[in-house]
Amino acid sequence: MMEIILAKELGFCFGVRRAIGLAEEALRLKKLVASLGPIIHNPLEVSRLETMGLRVIDNINELKDGESILIRSHGAPFDVIQELKNKGIDIIDATCPLVARAQRMVEFLSSEGYKVIIVGEQGHPEVRGLVSYGKGDTFVVSSLEEVPELSKEKIGIVGQTTFSLERFKEIVSEIVSRSWEIRIFNTLCDASRKRQRAVEELVDKADVIIVIGGKNSANTRRLVDIAKSKGSIVYHIESWDEVLPEWFVGKDKIGITAGASTPDWVIDKVLEKIKELCYQ
Amino acid sequence: MMEIILAKELGFCFGVRRAIGLAEEALRLKKLVASLGPIIHNPLEVSRLETMGLRVIDNINELKDGESILIRSHGAPFDVIQELKNKGIDIIDATCPLVARAQRMVEFLSSEGYKVIIVGEQGHPEVRGLVSYGKGDTFVVSSLEEVPELSKEKIGIVGQTTFSLERFKEIVSEIVSRSWEIRIFNTLCDASRKRQRAVEELVDKADVIIVIGGKNSANTRRLVDIAKSKGSIVYHIESWDEVLPEWFVGKDKIGITAGASTPDWVIDKVLEKIKELCYQ
Repeated sequence: MMEIILAKELGFCFGVRRAIGLAEEALRLKKLVASLGPIIHNPLEVSRLETMGLRVIDNINELKDGESILIRSHGAPFDVIQELKNKGIDIIDATCPLVARAQRMVEFLSSEGYKVIIVGEQGHPEVRGLVSYGKGDTFVVSSLEEVPELSKEKIGIVGQTTFSLERFKEIVSEIVSRSWEIRIFNTLCDASRKRQRAVEELVDKADVIIVIGGKNSANTRRLVDIAKSKGSIVYHIESWDEVLPEWFVGKDKIGITAGASTPDWVIDKVLEKIKELCYQ
Repeated sequence: MMEIILAKELGFCFGVRRAIGLAEEALRLKKLVASLGPIIHNPLEVSRLETMGLRVIDNINELKDGESILIRSHGAPFDVIQELKNKGIDIIDATCPLVARAQRMVEFLSSEGYKVIIVGEQGHPEVRGLVSYGKGDTFVVSSLEEVPELSKEKIGIVGQTTFSLERFKEIVSEIVSRSWEIRIFNTLCDASRKRQRAVEELVDKADVIIVIGGKNSANTRRLVDIAKSKGSIVYHIESWDEVLPEWFVGKDKIGITAGASTPDWVIDKVLEKIKELCYQ
């Protein structure tokens, strides 16, 4: 009897799932909703929400009368939120709670007189938001080479939630070696690491692994690489259309995982397709 | 014309020099002084101070009536200082100001509710002192393997002043990756690193390098290794007696450095001996 085993952690992280839930809820209440930037870097999911009525805008000046604005899980810059509040616009705040914590920590460290270093990718929407919560002396470092000379000022460190833990550790230790007093809020989220550990466990239980997610998605490809490196047979698909019946011939246990930008409904469709092929 | 070039940084660090200065001053004022533990790990220097009248004791119970107590640069445990104060004993506090800062930081972090981790060698006198300034939740970590599992408690980190910067960085980054909120006081002293950088510069300027310091002194041997690795001719001596005239034949520039436990007067005697051999 064939068995389908799901990875213990797969697909959307808590913050993205929550943001999409808030968008759906607002749309069901017949609100007019515009999202400031795409709610997720997944065109399939964005189109699905657009058919429910969500509009995607790049700038708050594009807002129409009576429209609510959805702040996506990455958060938005402080001055944008202030402007929206001043204009009395209804805000659906889907900022990931972990990102919101990081924003508060930047604000706190800055108000306590720390020079704030945000360890993250220059220009990333979350990072642009984080920087805006600091005062003048706030800057972004994404690599060891970018760590500045530091004197005896107090340094505060906050990380982009999706930054690599390994690189965060490297950069933090370099900053620590150049300063006297350092206060760190480890704001990194372990969603990706949990998915990676889960696929390692899955390989031991399954005869074949199917990884669902964008071919260009870095975190999805990482799951593929981990399963391959452990000697597993791995199929990487973006959509249920790609599933082939010959993959299951003589296999008892089918392991399934999905990248962090893969919606539940895509995972469900893949599961249906497998059942259809195997139980027909 | 032969020239003697001293390394930019050599010999005693600021804290040890200051401690010995305070001991000498007290002895010159005809005070009876007992040092709690050897003032420096250099028997030649300890004997010199003993001939001036300094007594070395291991326990404050050995103090004689009317004797002042000298706290060496490593500092002493909080309860020992309290007991001395309660007994009304005259304290000559030669605790290195950098060690005293580290003690204050342990006390501060502990009082602010941080679980305090002291990165340093178990049992080292400075570390025993540092631990005593924390409340119950204070412990020592000397290697990556000793980093405990940490939950969401606030972690404060202070380093033994003479700990290796590389190991401090490694341990700190591991602690950071396991906690949410970390406050670090980088209390490491750069005296050894400065001596190492100075010998690198010296190699470029001198035809031969003489390193003065104990054959068993780790920091002295490190200076020897650095000079050798840069292709220099190096002589490692403990005393002026070992200097040989043939070392200077055909050499114009003689570079001199000394480990952190080498007293000035030993360096001076070596310089005299070289001049005597070369200018006679």
